Amino acid sequence: MKVLLNGGVAKRGMELLSERFGDRLSLRQMSDGTAPEDPIRDLAWAQVMISVNYDADFAPAPNLKLLQIPASGLDAIDLASVPLQAAVCNVYEHEIAIAEYTFNGMLEWVVGLARRNAAFKGGDWTGTPSLAGQTRGELAGMTVGCLGYGNIGRAVARRALAFDMKVIALTQNPRPLDPEPNFMGGYGDLGDMLCEVDFLVICCPLTETTRGMIGGPELAQMKDSAVVINVARGHIADEDDLFGALSKGVIGGAVLDTWYQYPSPDNLAIRPSRHPYHDLDNVLMTPHISGWSEGQQLRRWAKTGDNIEALMTGRDLINLIRPAQP
Amino acid sequence: MKVLLNGGVAKRGMELLSERFGDRLSLRQMSDGTAPEDPIRDLAWAQVMISVNYDADFAPAPNLKLLQIPASGLDAIDLASVPLQAAVCNVYEHEIAIAEYTFNGMLEWVVGLARRNAAFKGGDWTGTPSLAGQTRGELAGMTVGCLGYGNIGRAVARRALAFDMKVIALTQNPRPLDPEPNFMGGYGDLGDMLCEVDFLVICCPLTETTRGMIGGPELAQMKDSAVVINVARGHIADEDDLFGALSKGVIGGAVLDTWYQYPSPDNLAIRPSRHPYHDLDNVLMTPHISGWSEGQQLRRWAKTGDNIEALMTGRDLINLIRPAQP
Repeated sequence: MKVLLNGGVAKRGMELLSERFGDRLSLRQMSDGTAPEDPIRDLAWAQVMISVNYDADFAPAPNLKLLQIPASGLDAIDLASVPLQAAVCNVYEHEIAIAEYTFNGMLEWVVGLARRNAAFKGGDWTGTPSLAGQTRGELAGMTVGCLGYGNIGRAVARRALAFDMKVIALTQNPRPLDPEPNFMGGYGDLGDMLCEVDFLVICCPLTETTRGMIGGPELAQMKDSAVVINVARGHIADEDDLFGALSKGVIGGAVLDTWYQYPSPDNLAIRPSRHPYHDLDNVLMTPHISGWSEGQQLRRWAKTGDNIEALMTGRDLINLIRPAQP
Repeated sequence: MKVLLNGGVAKRGMELLSERFGDRLSLRQMSDGTAPEDPIRDLAWAQVMISVNYDADFAPAPNLKLLQIPASGLDAIDLASVPLQAAVCNVYEHEIAIAEYTFNGMLEWVVGLARRNAAFKGGDWTGTPSLAGQTRGELAGMTVGCLGYGNIGRAVARRALAFDMKVIALTQNPRPLDPEPNFMGGYGDLGDMLCEVDFLVICCPLTETTRGMIGGPELAQMKDSAVVINVARGHIADEDDLFGALSKGVIGGAVLDTWYQYPSPDNLAIRPSRHPYHDLDNVLMTPHISGWSEGQQLRRWAKTGDNIEALMTGRDLINLIRPAQP
């Protein structure tokens, strides 16, 4: 089986797939296009392509049987451009890492261990109880709202319930899901949720329905202490309105991992938004690393290998987004 | 009932008890001793004393019926000095706050959200997946050891199990306790535990048994990646040996909230140890704030009020450390 790997994950994937399959696979890293004929030759060769992006600029791929996305997001895949005879699959496996990141954010917001570490290393005892220091809040008793209740939302909820938090979950298709939140609703219940939550965790896919779903009117409905946590895609929260709400104190703060602008190898200096989110003290921000754990990588490449194995042996593919057309 | 309040918590306690009891209590804050006769008069007057410390220097308290410690630790109480006719009680209610702090520490260690926020605000995309950034670990699958399995250890364990961590619990008197850890043992199992854990959470009382329990030989048994979290009392971990192990990389790091030296109003510049823990990059340190939440204070003063009410109405005291001698 001929497997073509594209993008930043290619090197790791080649190592792990090579270790598992040995001679049973021919692995090739997609050419960088310096010589324009190289990617054309690569795509003509490939039976499996592993890539987070695919569009109409890609050369014909007459032998392609499987486009395996080595991530969950489909927003860089133009399905209409993928040859009809190829199946399209994705992988998840990031929910543990993202739930842990989300709790790091909520706990840093409420407990502030890292912030207080910096002050205390400087010699500042402020806040110590024996000098009648100010108390802080507790996650216990607070409400977390999950906008989206797939793998990520449910991983957050399971931990939140153990922290004695109240969980409100909204999903496009409300139905019994484990764990059972304190309230389950559809996207039409967004307004009711927004005025209740202490933390809004955005963890739904970016689609035409969810793009800009959290804008000025929605942010205005939230408590002025509420915190927006975006671990999904930047554009689900409106870039301008979120910056405005944060800089004017309409909401309490944000923990943002997903962005509006991303770097490329030749533009590492780009900021993640056209607004200076990095100047806001009430924002904790990271470069899209929430789901990026070693465990996630090992699980994703294991599932990717399982799909290659399934293709080789005629078994069913997992996480099938679009079947191959006969 | 005449209630005397001592120390930094007195102001808050007077507010909350006054709100609950109104005229049913006479509340007085302990004099500062500028006039030596004042504390003598205070103690002669008191029927209830609320104080985290009590020793032989305290004046006679012939009317004292209850010494209520507004905290859990007994290490500043010399029981032999408390008049025999007085009962001694403490309060807990800090376990939620301490468990949240502990997870803030473990998550900051593994995920590093606050650390990465600082770098990213400076424009650094290092670690972003699209540039093949380095992965991180996950709490899921790691092992947390609770040295002590009282209210705090069990609050940590309940959250750790929801995070898919393995829990080892040691307690002086092993018995079935909720939640059930993956392994429960006595202090004699310390060596076996130390070589297993990724995080050692010290959450037992400071007693003659536990003083210095984590010293050089114990630290040497731990993984070189392991992290010591001390939310109990500084001296359970040996001050010199812990500093040595951290500065020489014998263990991976520490999250330290409890210390060897504390400030007083006239010495706010004191460092928390005679060693420069504050110079170590592998230490996150805070000024004894792990349990210091608003919820803890409200719950503690509610329990303290319940004990005063019990004394007034002849009901049983809760959290009785030593009964009154007839």
